[in-house]
Amino acid sequence: MSEKIETLLEALPYIKKFAGSIFVIKYGGAAMEEAHLKKEFAKDVALLKYVGINPVIVHGGGPMIGRLLKDLNIPTRFIDGLRVTDEKTLEVVEMVLAGLVNKEIVKNINDMGGRAIGLSGKDGRLLTAKQVENKEVGLVGDITGVNVDIIKDISKHGYIPVIAPIADGSDGKSYNINADTAAGNIAQALSAEKFILLTDVEGVIGSDGKLISMLRKREIEELVEQKIVTGGMIPKVSCCIDALKGGVQEAHIVDGRVPHAILLEVFTDSGIGTEIIGDE
Amino acid sequence: MSEKIETLLEALPYIKKFAGSIFVIKYGGAAMEEAHLKKEFAKDVALLKYVGINPVIVHGGGPMIGRLLKDLNIPTRFIDGLRVTDEKTLEVVEMVLAGLVNKEIVKNINDMGGRAIGLSGKDGRLLTAKQVENKEVGLVGDITGVNVDIIKDISKHGYIPVIAPIADGSDGKSYNINADTAAGNIAQALSAEKFILLTDVEGVIGSDGKLISMLRKREIEELVEQKIVTGGMIPKVSCCIDALKGGVQEAHIVDGRVPHAILLEVFTDSGIGTEIIGDE
Amino acid sequence: MSEKIETLLEALPYIKKFAGSIFVIKYGGAAMEEAHLKKEFAKDVALLKYVGINPVIVHGGGPMIGRLLKDLNIPTRFIDGLRVTDEKTLEVVEMVLAGLVNKEIVKNINDMGGRAIGLSGKDGRLLTAKQVENKEVGLVGDITGVNVDIIKDISKHGYIPVIAPIADGSDGKSYNINADTAAGNIAQALSAEKFILLTDVEGVIGSDGKLISMLRKREIEELVEQKIVTGGMIPKVSCCIDALKGGVQEAHIVDGRVPHAILLEVFTDSGIGTEIIGDE
Amino acid sequence: MSEKIETLLEALPYIKKFAGSIFVIKYGGAAMEEAHLKKEFAKDVALLKYVGINPVIVHGGGPMIGRLLKDLNIPTRFIDGLRVTDEKTLEVVEMVLAGLVNKEIVKNINDMGGRAIGLSGKDGRLLTAKQVENKEVGLVGDITGVNVDIIKDISKHGYIPVIAPIADGSDGKSYNINADTAAGNIAQALSAEKFILLTDVEGVIGSDGKLISMLRKREIEELVEQKIVTGGMIPKVSCCIDALKGGVQEAHIVDGRVPHAILLEVFTDSGIGTEIIGDE
Amino acid sequence: MSEKIETLLEALPYIKKFAGSIFVIKYGGAAMEEAHLKKEFAKDVALLKYVGINPVIVHGGGPMIGRLLKDLNIPTRFIDGLRVTDEKTLEVVEMVLAGLVNKEIVKNINDMGGRAIGLSGKDGRLLTAKQVENKEVGLVGDITGVNVDIIKDISKHGYIPVIAPIADGSDGKSYNINADTAAGNIAQALSAEKFILLTDVEGVIGSDGKLISMLRKREIEELVEQKIVTGGMIPKVSCCIDALKGGVQEAHIVDGRVPHAILLEVFTDSGIGTEIIGDE
Amino acid sequence: MSEKIETLLEALPYIKKFAGSIFVIKYGGAAMEEAHLKKEFAKDVALLKYVGINPVIVHGGGPMIGRLLKDLNIPTRFIDGLRVTDEKTLEVVEMVLAGLVNKEIVKNINDMGGRAIGLSGKDGRLLTAKQVENKEVGLVGDITGVNVDIIKDISKHGYIPVIAPIADGSDGKSYNINADTAAGNIAQALSAEKFILLTDVEGVIGSDGKLISMLRKREIEELVEQKIVTGGMIPKVSCCIDALKGGVQEAHIVDGRVPHAILLEVFTDSGIGTEIIGDE
Repeated sequence: MSEKIETLLEALPYIKKFAGSIFVIKYGGAAMEEAHLKKEFAKDVALLKYVGINPVIVHGGGPMIGRLLKDLNIPTRFIDGLRVTDEKTLEVVEMVLAGLVNKEIVKNINDMGGRAIGLSGKDGRLLTAKQVENKEVGLVGDITGVNVDIIKDISKHGYIPVIAPIADGSDGKSYNINADTAAGNIAQALSAEKFILLTDVEGVIGSDGKLISMLRKREIEELVEQKIVTGGMIPKVSCCIDALKGGVQEAHIVDGRVPHAILLEVFTDSGIGTEIIGDE
Repeated sequence: MSEKIETLLEALPYIKKFAGSIFVIKYGGAAMEEAHLKKEFAKDVALLKYVGINPVIVHGGGPMIGRLLKDLNIPTRFIDGLRVTDEKTLEVVEMVLAGLVNKEIVKNINDMGGRAIGLSGKDGRLLTAKQVENKEVGLVGDITGVNVDIIKDISKHGYIPVIAPIADGSDGKSYNINADTAAGNIAQALSAEKFILLTDVEGVIGSDGKLISMLRKREIEELVEQKIVTGGMIPKVSCCIDALKGGVQEAHIVDGRVPHAILLEVFTDSGIGTEIIGDE
Repeated sequence: MSEKIETLLEALPYIKKFAGSIFVIKYGGAAMEEAHLKKEFAKDVALLKYVGINPVIVHGGGPMIGRLLKDLNIPTRFIDGLRVTDEKTLEVVEMVLAGLVNKEIVKNINDMGGRAIGLSGKDGRLLTAKQVENKEVGLVGDITGVNVDIIKDISKHGYIPVIAPIADGSDGKSYNINADTAAGNIAQALSAEKFILLTDVEGVIGSDGKLISMLRKREIEELVEQKIVTGGMIPKVSCCIDALKGGVQEAHIVDGRVPHAILLEVFTDSGIGTEIIGDE
Repeated sequence: MSEKIETLLEALPYIKKFAGSIFVIKYGGAAMEEAHLKKEFAKDVALLKYVGINPVIVHGGGPMIGRLLKDLNIPTRFIDGLRVTDEKTLEVVEMVLAGLVNKEIVKNINDMGGRAIGLSGKDGRLLTAKQVENKEVGLVGDITGVNVDIIKDISKHGYIPVIAPIADGSDGKSYNINADTAAGNIAQALSAEKFILLTDVEGVIGSDGKLISMLRKREIEELVEQKIVTGGMIPKVSCCIDALKGGVQEAHIVDGRVPHAILLEVFTDSGIGTEIIGDE
Repeated sequence: MSEKIETLLEALPYIKKFAGSIFVIKYGGAAMEEAHLKKEFAKDVALLKYVGINPVIVHGGGPMIGRLLKDLNIPTRFIDGLRVTDEKTLEVVEMVLAGLVNKEIVKNINDMGGRAIGLSGKDGRLLTAKQVENKEVGLVGDITGVNVDIIKDISKHGYIPVIAPIADGSDGKSYNINADTAAGNIAQALSAEKFILLTDVEGVIGSDGKLISMLRKREIEELVEQKIVTGGMIPKVSCCIDALKGGVQEAHIVDGRVPHAILLEVFTDSGIGTEIIGDE
Repeated sequence: MSEKIETLLEALPYIKKFAGSIFVIKYGGAAMEEAHLKKEFAKDVALLKYVGINPVIVHGGGPMIGRLLKDLNIPTRFIDGLRVTDEKTLEVVEMVLAGLVNKEIVKNINDMGGRAIGLSGKDGRLLTAKQVENKEVGLVGDITGVNVDIIKDISKHGYIPVIAPIADGSDGKSYNINADTAAGNIAQALSAEKFILLTDVEGVIGSDGKLISMLRKREIEELVEQKIVTGGMIPKVSCCIDALKGGVQEAHIVDGRVPHAILLEVFTDSGIGTEIIGDE
């Protein structure tokens, strides 16, 4: 039994270090699909809050959106990884993200003893956006503003904000925002201590095929230039670099398929994914 | 022009009287369907907030739910006016209410200069519920608790809470709540000054076929006994009576088909609907 | 009836725009003499406060002072529009301004549902002054300091400050201050959004004999140079220019003889007097 | 020099005892007439505030009112010690009390390093009243309400409230209030620790012709019954008894002709006047 | 590694349950003597604070006092377990407790990342006392008052109060207080959720010679009556009973010789010592 | 009697001037040894607090330390005025300073009606230090940091902090700090208005053998260069100069052998010691 206590005490330096910090967590992938991973994620988030950290969750919902579009016989296609979004599609996106996925996450966290409040970017004009450069994709937006007051207020009162990446356009329309980008933008606006990207890969893989545990911003930029980091990892890495440039202290790409991935990354020395920090 | 100013000044005694008050407004029916009524409702709510009143919006969404169920080929039926709700149906209800309708109301109010935040009853366990007595209807619930702290907090910070009537069951399930009942319960829990029911009828009609402008609780109870008030008006009247019993000062049944119905009811002497107040 | 509501809603953008703003209003002339105008002014001020604006009233009292001086057989004369003020005269000025006029305004506002508190510049050393350059006028002063803390404090607690322009001299004497100048100085010290001068003329009249609705600071300076603006209007215009230079956003010269002149100027697009704004 | 320090230290137990207390002081008589006594009073009040006591000053102004009435050839008469007050007279009363006397006291205290704010009972509806029973005296009132919030607020922010006893009638009229009574009522409403009446007599004189230093409420009532306390002392004693009944802890009748009478009464064991305390 | 995370998560329900609670811990015995136990105790206390519990430490120091008395050749003797304490002895007690032991505990906790502030009962008159009934023991006292404001204030600002049981007598003398009693009294005054007594025994042993994990107050009283609980355990048990009577929810007698005894008792289901709770 | 009141009023300008100020007082020498001086010091400090000044006491304890070392047969020696301090000696220093002297001062102030809280530099890491340059003296430190939050917090809540100059080393060791230096450092860190050094000499003596009442920093530096100020006065003067350089407004060297030396220095024009102020 005393081994358990030792474990508890091993967490103490990390608890101390992060007391009062803001962690913006992009939640998605397997961790949001598989029942047991969902529960474990909710538990992790509740624990973070109880030990004095302020987690802010930003979630996607791709697969569920695809499913409902299919059920409704609405065809869908992607350009450069962005879903082409007309008004009908956006309505589905919003229903799934803000109505279904968001509230399920909220409920899971509440069931684990946390106190979560779900918000879409429309609530209190939390997120404002303009259309992305490529107009062909339709109602897909780039974030132009984050109303951090609401997030801070909710966090200060003991709640965990859970955010669906729908934004208010200055043109009166609504926009679908890529969840990774939204999370990165929110982390910047909050000057978060950590920006954690939950994904379905192990992390950044080096030229030797092995996971890289820690990298400086400069190093990851080189890996991209050298085409060692490629494909779907590039936008994720970009989000991290942007967040670091914007004042976030540490970005993490973590494997959401591993149970309790967040706690493992936060409360152990080596972590399990890739940590990216600033250039000195 | 000076007539306009006179009108502005006529509102002064009402503004004075209601400064700092909470008005819980059940939003539904035509006012939530027709484009111009939606805008006018949003404007009214923003104005109430600007003149120092704290509106709290609780909304339904029946027709939109019906439409999506139909699009998804999910059959639906009603027992005693309650939609029989299985898990699949509840998912649709939640998507429509919390994802679509709620966020549209939020956006409309924000577009009119207010600052709204949308919540479902799951957010911060705002609403808890248990299954209604008639178990045949499935996941339809009666409210057992209201977390007023969140609502008050949001109101105090200048925001207008917009609430979708989905609740957390103590049995771990989610429940669909009748919006009228949810609004009445929230009004009670907040000890609201006014509980306003927007409907698609003129108000309570007396035995002479004319609209009754004001009634005591006792009088409306008599009208029900005498079967002068019947049909769909009975549950609405019951909500009002319950609210008054629970400490709300005035309940109003107002015709949502009339533009600016709320302002007319609040800022003019006669009002346009039926006001029900306590006995004596 | 619904027209009335439309009017109410027309005010919404103005209410929104000015929520939390400070308006310093110089109150004097006919609006302070005629019984019905006094009541209407009090009503206007109460309404401003109820819709979230913080009015600060600074008043004169020339005619009433003249009357009491006459009743007491104290001769009085003016140099360049300033009343030559010996100790005996100052005593009368103070009695009339701080004792009679100030408290009547306070009572009128309170009777209209506002909550006013009357202060002279001596209270809490609200206004400090030194003798004007022309020593012949005796105890007439220029303001050297404004204790804005009291005004802000009173405003924050929901009260409307009503200020009589008597000031404490650093030489231990008391000084009579021109009410227009006092109001302008207070507006500057508070960085008020609006400085409104209630007068007994329509506003600034252009070379074509017509009222000018809006002017830039530079333009009004030109009108003075070109002697189009002359006589008693010059000191009023100077107060406005000084206020704008000192950080006030908009100055208004408004006809106090028109009922509800303030509301008309604030809540309608064209206004009824002359608005002077900064250059550029 | 060290004797001076000893004196300072002798005051310590009194300073300790009264830290944070409210003292309501009725100011009038010689102490308000003679130049050097006025300065000394102001100094005393400033000192009380600096050592942590919250003085609240309520003042009369009889002789100055009489003088102005005479200068204006307005005849005046008294019934049972109350000045018969018509509208013209009330105007003079108000000008003298709120305009002249109040602001002079404020200035004196400010000159001595205190920070005073003068108020009439009309300010923020501080005092409300109804006509006294004997309608012949005209606009003379009995206090029906005290708005203690303003007084406490002003005190809390470091200011010394100075109150002129003019009140707002619920009938829309203004009323002149006897200053002793006003002070007693304000002391009650504030649950003041001390109520100090500055008068032009030594204090309560016993049957042996000597000053009585301390009395219980019951004892003073007996002295009145036995006609040992008579004449003008009776209303003063009544104010004290009412104040004690209303929750004030100690009432003092002090000789205002003695320089620094207040400090002597407060900071020395024997005091110089008569202290009246509750029974038991 | 993931086992460690599981352990962390097992603590979550306890962390949740005790968030914001006050735990008064009597620190003494082996846990205060042995170097490694001292460090572990300090670590435990720091962890409790970091997970949202407010620990308040009350310590003894018997052995160190005995050593210094011996070094100074001051003879010492005990009556009924209480050290006979003359002025000379009290001086030594105070030096050791407040100067040496208290500051060592403070330093240990600070070194482990907590923020402790050491106080004796004299600081801010935290503890007041009167002499115990048996006057032969000299300056040994019973607590008559606890100034909980200081403790709460220090706790609220993130510090851990560490209290040496020396008290101020109302007779001007200082008193030595039994640390167990002092801790029990402080727990009562704070209405602590838990009162934890660290001792050098396993806990309460039943008639079968086995440790009893949980007992009701009534049951422990019976064990004392039946002489199953005897000797030095009786005063410890009495402290716990008094604390429970005074509003503490749970009392614990825990073996301080076991590393991390406090965490084991608090964060595991069975605990390691004896928990005493109230009679339903 | 009225002379006493005059004295009280003479203090008013000083009370006004210093309201809200922080005075850091180094307490030591005769004022800490002789029974009547101890009481008078405690009274002075309590009075300062009651009239709105925030005294912070830093004390030494040399003679008592020497006595206990002798009683324990621990030899001691000094290098350049610093006591050579090994671990055994430091333990004695800490016991005497934090356990005995500190708590006696606290008790004396409390007995005089003040509310004191005693702290050592270890409490809340109030003082951090590193070893002095001359390593031969052992555990003697120079201050590297002052945690002013604790001091301000305690002061704000009405308590008087009394500080024993023991500090936490960044090397994990504890350090003895010269009390004069500690007091000067604390005064700097707090930007105190006054730094008062209580000593056993009259003050700074000029070349004419007479006490100098006031000096600029530059002048005192010249006196040191000219060897007019010599010996034990040099480190005291240095502390004052450092404090002035660090933002303290006035430093005082005062004769602690004179009863009420602090009050005499603070509340009289000439003072009794030497005041050192900045160079214009």
